[in-house]
Amino acid sequence: MSRETLSFPLTSIPPLEPYLPPSTSSTSSKPFLTLTYATSLDASLALAPGVRTTLSGPYSKSMTHYLRTRHDAILVGCTTAIVDNPALNSRLESITSLDQQPRPVILDPKGRWDFSEDSQVIRLAAEFRGKGPWVVTTRGREVKERSELLERVGGKYLFLETGENDRFKWGDVLRVLGEEGVKSVMVEGGGEVINSLLINPENRLVDSVIITIAPTWLGKGGVVVSPSRQEGQTSQLRLRDISWQPHGEDVVLCGRIIHS
Amino acid sequence: MSRETLSFPLTSIPPLEPYLPPSTSSTSSKPFLTLTYATSLDASLALAPGVRTTLSGPYSKSMTHYLRTRHDAILVGCTTAIVDNPALNSRLESITSLDQQPRPVILDPKGRWDFSEDSQVIRLAAEFRGKGPWVVTTRGREVKERSELLERVGGKYLFLETGENDRFKWGDVLRVLGEEGVKSVMVEGGGEVINSLLINPENRLVDSVIITIAPTWLGKGGVVVSPSRQEGQTSQLRLRDISWQPHGEDVVLCGRIIHS
Repeated sequence: MSRETLSFPLTSIPPLEPYLPPSTSSTSSKPFLTLTYATSLDASLALAPGVRTTLSGPYSKSMTHYLRTRHDAILVGCTTAIVDNPALNSRLESITSLDQQPRPVILDPKGRWDFSEDSQVIRLAAEFRGKGPWVVTTRGREVKERSELLERVGGKYLFLETGENDRFKWGDVLRVLGEEGVKSVMVEGGGEVINSLLINPENRLVDSVIITIAPTWLGKGGVVVSPSRQEGQTSQLRLRDISWQPHGEDVVLCGRIIHS
Repeated sequence: MSRETLSFPLTSIPPLEPYLPPSTSSTSSKPFLTLTYATSLDASLALAPGVRTTLSGPYSKSMTHYLRTRHDAILVGCTTAIVDNPALNSRLESITSLDQQPRPVILDPKGRWDFSEDSQVIRLAAEFRGKGPWVVTTRGREVKERSELLERVGGKYLFLETGENDRFKWGDVLRVLGEEGVKSVMVEGGGEVINSLLINPENRLVDSVIITIAPTWLGKGGVVVSPSRQEGQTSQLRLRDISWQPHGEDVVLCGRIIHS
């Protein structure tokens, strides 16, 4: 993992601003939720699960690191944590203190993520270059050594019960984050997490969508963003308040989900 | 099918021009090939085969009708001809003569398209609002009555042998069109035709790509544009000379395929 710092041009902020969490404290207990990801033209996040795939260009990368500074927490699923070993911090050069870093949140209902001191997100927290992660799991799935490791770097376990398919309900996840003082969360991946959030009625919890599309096809067999259809579904899931922002070879799409 | 005429703003032409067939006669015998289609964010052309799905807005529609006037021929697969019953002409208001209409070309290796006087493309040709279609099929699949119907409206059968999987080879299709004087062809769909054209080495025959993306997800189970991967394939199929053009809620992506 590179330690280079990134800069994000000030002029790029105003077009994103309408889609970012309000700076004034909201009265809502539900955190503001931004869904963000980068795909190919055939809607793939990666060539296959666990295969790091470079899709988008340098703008998208620095935008992601800027967006991270604008959210209290960034959330990924445990598959992403396992296969990508992500840093989940911001390397923006303008960051001067740990307060400006987002809280990494990992959804791990079955306790599959076997993290250690060598995991990026733990190592960075130990070095005060990122906050200690919160691992959301179910009671009984916690591991004592891991719990101690988390607490040593300023993180902790959060406990929730699962609903159908051994998954957390998004409403529960946002509630527990809200109770911890999180006012805004950016959901970054992976495919399973994103797809589950796009299904009705969970998609009503999404406040903003920021998607980067790269002009490439990964071909059949990739990790695809495409929500499952529900029985009897006839309507399309559409975005409103659309903004398309070309940057280099990629385009950034901002919007809000239409709640019909 | 509406008979409304469409207008396309003159100011929208310059950004498309670099991706259109050259007006000067090319020395190449291979027709200039433009691939064009409209998809959702999850790369679907339609909710399911045979389900007409409105994805893109009015700009994309009038652009398609403009692009049709800039190509000698427009080509679709027989599934599209069967399930969509498309007009395959241009309804641009600036059209004053049949010469400005593109030639409809339908790939139908197995003679599956059971067209009649009531088929849109035949009816429009009978009314001189479109050229008579050329149906590319294999020897022995032609039907006498259909042949007579085609000739009555200025169309005809073209004969080719199939390669693997009972499909035509794209090189053969373009050769036979070139021999008929076609200098440019716009491939419009459907999914099978587009996907087969994106696979290496067929994608080397593609000169330009013009894709409209609409800010909607159709969900799993749609007609998806995503080429099959070939054994041992490690590289991505990318576009170069990229242009992203936002129009209304949609974006139009123009580019050329990188031949590595």
